[in-house]
Amino acid sequence: MDKNSFAPRPPMGWNSYDYYDTNVTEADVLANAEYMAMNLKPYGWEYVVVDIQWYAYDTASMREKFQYIPFGRKEMDAYGRLLPCPEKFPSARGGAGFRELAARIHELGLKFGIHIMRGIPRAAAEAHLPVLGTDTTADMVADPASICGWNPDMYGVRDTPAGQAYYDSLLALYTSWGVDFIKCDDICVTNLYPTRLYSGRHEIEMLHRAIARCGRPIVLSLSPGPALLEQSAHYRKYANMWRVTDDFWDTWPALRSMFDTCERWQDHVSAGCYPDCDMLPLGLLGKGFGQERPTNFTPAEQQTMLTLWCIFSSPLMLGAELTKLDTRTLTMLQNPELLRLENGRFRARQVRRDEESRVWAAVDPQTGEWYLALFNLSERTMPISASLAECAGMLAEYRLADARFGAEVWSGRLLAWDGDAILAEVEPHGVRLLHMEPQ
Amino acid sequence: MDKNSFAPRPPMGWNSYDYYDTNVTEADVLANAEYMAMNLKPYGWEYVVVDIQWYAYDTASMREKFQYIPFGRKEMDAYGRLLPCPEKFPSARGGAGFRELAARIHELGLKFGIHIMRGIPRAAAEAHLPVLGTDTTADMVADPASICGWNPDMYGVRDTPAGQAYYDSLLALYTSWGVDFIKCDDICVTNLYPTRLYSGRHEIEMLHRAIARCGRPIVLSLSPGPALLEQSAHYRKYANMWRVTDDFWDTWPALRSMFDTCERWQDHVSAGCYPDCDMLPLGLLGKGFGQERPTNFTPAEQQTMLTLWCIFSSPLMLGAELTKLDTRTLTMLQNPELLRLENGRFRARQVRRDEESRVWAAVDPQTGEWYLALFNLSERTMPISASLAECAGMLAEYRLADARFGAEVWSGRLLAWDGDAILAEVEPHGVRLLHMEPQ
Amino acid sequence: MDKNSFAPRPPMGWNSYDYYDTNVTEADVLANAEYMAMNLKPYGWEYVVVDIQWYAYDTASMREKFQYIPFGRKEMDAYGRLLPCPEKFPSARGGAGFRELAARIHELGLKFGIHIMRGIPRAAAEAHLPVLGTDTTADMVADPASICGWNPDMYGVRDTPAGQAYYDSLLALYTSWGVDFIKCDDICVTNLYPTRLYSGRHEIEMLHRAIARCGRPIVLSLSPGPALLEQSAHYRKYANMWRVTDDFWDTWPALRSMFDTCERWQDHVSAGCYPDCDMLPLGLLGKGFGQERPTNFTPAEQQTMLTLWCIFSSPLMLGAELTKLDTRTLTMLQNPELLRLENGRFRARQVRRDEESRVWAAVDPQTGEWYLALFNLSERTMPISASLAECAGMLAEYRLADARFGAEVWSGRLLAWDGDAILAEVEPHGVRLLHMEPQ
Amino acid sequence: MDKNSFAPRPPMGWNSYDYYDTNVTEADVLANAEYMAMNLKPYGWEYVVVDIQWYAYDTASMREKFQYIPFGRKEMDAYGRLLPCPEKFPSARGGAGFRELAARIHELGLKFGIHIMRGIPRAAAEAHLPVLGTDTTADMVADPASICGWNPDMYGVRDTPAGQAYYDSLLALYTSWGVDFIKCDDICVTNLYPTRLYSGRHEIEMLHRAIARCGRPIVLSLSPGPALLEQSAHYRKYANMWRVTDDFWDTWPALRSMFDTCERWQDHVSAGCYPDCDMLPLGLLGKGFGQERPTNFTPAEQQTMLTLWCIFSSPLMLGAELTKLDTRTLTMLQNPELLRLENGRFRARQVRRDEESRVWAAVDPQTGEWYLALFNLSERTMPISASLAECAGMLAEYRLADARFGAEVWSGRLLAWDGDAILAEVEPHGVRLLHMEPQ
Repeated sequence: MDKNSFAPRPPMGWNSYDYYDTNVTEADVLANAEYMAMNLKPYGWEYVVVDIQWYAYDTASMREKFQYIPFGRKEMDAYGRLLPCPEKFPSARGGAGFRELAARIHELGLKFGIHIMRGIPRAAAEAHLPVLGTDTTADMVADPASICGWNPDMYGVRDTPAGQAYYDSLLALYTSWGVDFIKCDDICVTNLYPTRLYSGRHEIEMLHRAIARCGRPIVLSLSPGPALLEQSAHYRKYANMWRVTDDFWDTWPALRSMFDTCERWQDHVSAGCYPDCDMLPLGLLGKGFGQERPTNFTPAEQQTMLTLWCIFSSPLMLGAELTKLDTRTLTMLQNPELLRLENGRFRARQVRRDEESRVWAAVDPQTGEWYLALFNLSERTMPISASLAECAGMLAEYRLADARFGAEVWSGRLLAWDGDAILAEVEPHGVRLLHMEPQ
Repeated sequence: MDKNSFAPRPPMGWNSYDYYDTNVTEADVLANAEYMAMNLKPYGWEYVVVDIQWYAYDTASMREKFQYIPFGRKEMDAYGRLLPCPEKFPSARGGAGFRELAARIHELGLKFGIHIMRGIPRAAAEAHLPVLGTDTTADMVADPASICGWNPDMYGVRDTPAGQAYYDSLLALYTSWGVDFIKCDDICVTNLYPTRLYSGRHEIEMLHRAIARCGRPIVLSLSPGPALLEQSAHYRKYANMWRVTDDFWDTWPALRSMFDTCERWQDHVSAGCYPDCDMLPLGLLGKGFGQERPTNFTPAEQQTMLTLWCIFSSPLMLGAELTKLDTRTLTMLQNPELLRLENGRFRARQVRRDEESRVWAAVDPQTGEWYLALFNLSERTMPISASLAECAGMLAEYRLADARFGAEVWSGRLLAWDGDAILAEVEPHGVRLLHMEPQ
Repeated sequence: MDKNSFAPRPPMGWNSYDYYDTNVTEADVLANAEYMAMNLKPYGWEYVVVDIQWYAYDTASMREKFQYIPFGRKEMDAYGRLLPCPEKFPSARGGAGFRELAARIHELGLKFGIHIMRGIPRAAAEAHLPVLGTDTTADMVADPASICGWNPDMYGVRDTPAGQAYYDSLLALYTSWGVDFIKCDDICVTNLYPTRLYSGRHEIEMLHRAIARCGRPIVLSLSPGPALLEQSAHYRKYANMWRVTDDFWDTWPALRSMFDTCERWQDHVSAGCYPDCDMLPLGLLGKGFGQERPTNFTPAEQQTMLTLWCIFSSPLMLGAELTKLDTRTLTMLQNPELLRLENGRFRARQVRRDEESRVWAAVDPQTGEWYLALFNLSERTMPISASLAECAGMLAEYRLADARFGAEVWSGRLLAWDGDAILAEVEPHGVRLLHMEPQ
Repeated sequence: MDKNSFAPRPPMGWNSYDYYDTNVTEADVLANAEYMAMNLKPYGWEYVVVDIQWYAYDTASMREKFQYIPFGRKEMDAYGRLLPCPEKFPSARGGAGFRELAARIHELGLKFGIHIMRGIPRAAAEAHLPVLGTDTTADMVADPASICGWNPDMYGVRDTPAGQAYYDSLLALYTSWGVDFIKCDDICVTNLYPTRLYSGRHEIEMLHRAIARCGRPIVLSLSPGPALLEQSAHYRKYANMWRVTDDFWDTWPALRSMFDTCERWQDHVSAGCYPDCDMLPLGLLGKGFGQERPTNFTPAEQQTMLTLWCIFSSPLMLGAELTKLDTRTLTMLQNPELLRLENGRFRARQVRRDEESRVWAAVDPQTGEWYLALFNLSERTMPISASLAECAGMLAEYRLADARFGAEVWSGRLLAWDGDAILAEVEPHGVRLLHMEPQ
């Protein structure tokens, strides 16, 4: 199995974290899945991902002190594998795991994903639990010096056959549940260790091997960022997507700096291999963190974010509560001209950068169509132009014919080229995205 | 003018440094050029590059103390532009510059290149020389806090219109001489300043602009390395090639570590944009450093080096004294099956790495042919295998048909695939390179 | 209570680590204590310190894999306080702790010390054990992100009243046992965290406070090194000694580099405040690590080591198995002229340094006597001289009269000054130490 | 000659920089010297120091672009030694140097100091000027890779006999002028080179040697800061004072952070060896920078600054224009109870620190008198207390008797101890300084 075939296009879906934090329930997940099936699936959205600490009890009970209660109660089987907390996921009672929830999501025509932390539970190591299929125990598999800086649940796993066996046992379980997508955290960069930022390297390889052995095409997503540019070949070889930024939230400085991040990573996108700009904080957010609130992004910023993510071929994971999505936001997420950029074939390049604006272009070498995005990073409406000469290298490399006009994706208006150049007024923090089809 | 069109293929040629250090003369350059025209040009070799301090007098006179004599005598015009030292380049007498030398190289059907140091001569700044075409003087253009850590000749140029004017004046001069290639040093990474390694950023842009204005398609090569991976987009936008390693010499550890370097840079090769593995220390070397000596590389290591440089699409610059080249080395440099990899279209990827071996593949998406290289990094002869499955992602991305057999480039022998796999015995530090044509 | 009064002189004694590693037993400790009482106590040696993992079972059972067995069996009370393992310390049965061992050592006229790891046992946190004298539990006191990089037993303690209560409960226990000296590890520098090397700062303060509250004058020693020079004022305020080097073993490079360390720390010695050069690896070593062996230091190097430690006023902790000490070594440790330097009043300064030698002087401002040490760091016998002029600043500062001759401490021979200067032949890696009394 | 005897007390005086920048003239210097002789000399103030670029012409002519005009005109003798610019210092005409100015300052009973930049003029190296007393030239002495990051005038000097000869020639010149004090800049820390911050180490030693050879007791002051704590022994051996902070100006954050700096350096003060907190920005400042302005410090902050500098035994260099000093400021500078702390014998220690306050004590071991300073770092008036118990260690070390009351230095009021403790209300950013004499 070629792991790249598991994700021929950048994965698109929904993730529970931005709205629910650690507290999402089975009912919440299903409600969002049903909404997705009804409203978004036709446009390519398909993954439903349950984020962090689905195995933990009492997750919201000490919010003022801890996001993750240290040494708190967790659901775990006799082999040190975490199971869904049945108080949050009733169908998981009796050790059934996510089997039923995954089945219902599959019935909706969607795919099911889970978040995991790198490693083996600290409680399993302390209790010397057996590792399935081996004669060793968790205390010999856990590396007591390998922890996560911000979540207290796990120890890293040693680079040994027994360590691989533990990851194999995890994937056997997830396969039995029907998991399609794993977001593994504390692994893309291990930032507790400033001088060993890639100390989870062997665990990435072990996860990859365990997926290959489990027989199921499970997409592997790595967090958190910023991923290490010099490890790009390693990420590409073993994973499908990897976070190129720290947690992304809805502030303009974070969005603005994503342009630099995408510039650095632009040469590292290929089929099955996607640098990941993180979730899209849209609609309503934050209830699980204590206060439901609308996104801070203006409509213009939302278009800018979606355009950058799409032209860069980033995975798209919605952070919103879908059932409360407003019509304007939903409409944005149903724009087929925009989402066409996520077909897995487009390759993008930054064409120009200056202090106030950025220009990006993306090409589908198979069809010959291409896109041009004019981003206004300044605080005032201003004209932004681009010329065929600037795109010439890229077009030449892909042997594309010049286009003479294009449709602006967000407005639907046709824009004509004036000789070699095109020029558009762009609002502050906004974007114009042109779609050019071969003549 | 699209600067990428100046170098549709990775530049191939000869550079005076490895043999002559600072002491190459006009006669030396011409002798090497004539040899190249006769023996190498038919295989794609075409650049003749005069390396560092062609403007300096007495260059070998204080060898035991200095490679570059501080505050030594230099040939310079009234505008602070360095000229060839007429003692080394007689045709440069009377301020004629490299005009005649370039003309003779052009007559041989070759191209002419020069090395320059980033910046403006310290002596020009101290003398307040005028900057051509401006009413300002060199002391206002030079940045007294921007120096090179290892060469004492220059100051960096300020990021001002007058600074641009100085670079413009340089390119006007070089254009009048007929220069085709500039290797600018102390600019790709400014390693005197550990916290400002890219302090020459604006000077790269100024050089690019000056070239665009001069009207001549001059290839821009940046030194020294290691180039900064996170600045890849900037190098690609403004230069044609940039050094990805520190100075490369003929030791196995240096060659071995080049595999890691190529791994990191593999996604950053495109038409007109070439990460540069540095000169090839072959044949006889080092005379200008005080002692002529043969390369330390074994024949197997020489094949490994050439194969890695070619499959990676690195520029190829010979470090040897050409007129003294032995037949075996010359034959290697005339291998058309090898040099086909330098057609500018091939794109390579590392397929597998372990402690003892590396496997790389390269594809020409236009013709469908591909290469597979099996490198033995260990100290013993050993079998190295590769499978189509391992290359599958790459072949799929380029939509290539599988090949069933291939010719080994260095031996000429056909190698057949056993089902999905191919296996070859490879000598220590050696390589097998297979060329597969579409069926 | 002024903590400086607990250690008016640099502590001198024996530590179990260098010979026994984690495996020392009650019988071993007593045998060494009896030897010390008989042979060394008259010369000022008085501390008997039980080093790491006295609470752990099976400590030598997985030597080939682990120095410290992860998640191994430990003796612990109901409040999460570690107790001596009764298999190694039979008198500790029934929760009696070190009470009887301490009593027997006190009967010998000696003082009793223990090693502890910073923090609270991981097992206590996992088990939610109560913290004595509070209504909180260990899981709320332990900081799950604060671990030791090389020992898997503990979590750091949070900077809260409950955290202080845990340390108070430890000191109450140790006071009931009769502990006189605590060597706390993983606290002087927390080197798992390169950007937060002093993350145990608050735990140093908590230990100090707990000692003050316990009512017993317990000496506080901090490990490991290298201590942070810029935190000198903090160490001096809260501790009695702190390790200025990484673990010191018997190699010449380690000994040689201690001269630089002492140079850096020379201004930071005062009554009750001692930068600590670590244990003295003399006699037989290493049995607990798997192989008993004699020290690698030559007799000359041993004199050099002892001289440097003494002139610097470092604490002196013997790493040897005392019961097997040879006569030559014992005689060195009984040299009263040497050990006089450890009276707590001497202040030392490096007088001169060059590549091959070092000269140090120390003064007792109360008595007016002073010492001069001539160290030969080279590989050949050579003359080393010193002049009164070089010591002038120091002597003037302490208003000492010049001395006209002195006794060499290791040989007992008188050395006369030739006018202003003294000169001695010193063997390679050796030393001459002159003792000058006021006229 | 013991260089510590050149400065038995921390030097006190005036420096031209804070008011005049590069533009001070002979008349300005004399006016300030005369004021000092009249008003401050009786209180211990004695040094008159001419700061940076006294050798440069046109110093204020390009203020909007440069503080130091690159490659600007300088007065220099035939041996590459800078001379005073006669346009600013008329008595220096004809190569007379500072001879007359120094003589007039000496007539006033004061001492004369100059600022120099580490190294040899760049212009001297470019011109190959001879080095006095040698057969070598400046181009062979200058290190072209050693520059200052912020001043363009000099190159560092190589560590060779010829380099020493250049420094010897400088000191011969300065001795002939009658210089008493040299503030050498770009040498205490060479911050252009983040990985070689002490690259001027050998030049400090060469300066020290040149001073020893010149036969005149010239005080050596090193700039800029922050000095390197781990090099403390080196500074103490070769210099009299060294800057422990970056340039200090009149802002509260800078003053506040000086408490941390003094804490780090408190153990490194001894006779002739003074960590230097930099000039005192009092009165009127900044005229040479383009705008005369009063200090930003409030009266309370001025007392806090003076108290900290004095209790720490920092050198005191006034940054004000003396001739315009207001009465209140002058009175502060004439406080004998305060300045007694600068007698060279007091040794200080930080007694307590918390977020809002600091307590320091200083002892004169010869007389038995001591001082206690209570600093309020907060924004509100608050009571600050101290106890004899807190000072016990320090008093015991110096064997002082307890004092029962003390005079507050700034107010003159007596403060009595309540048993063991003393308590005072202190205004925001203010201080209470108690002087306790032995009973």
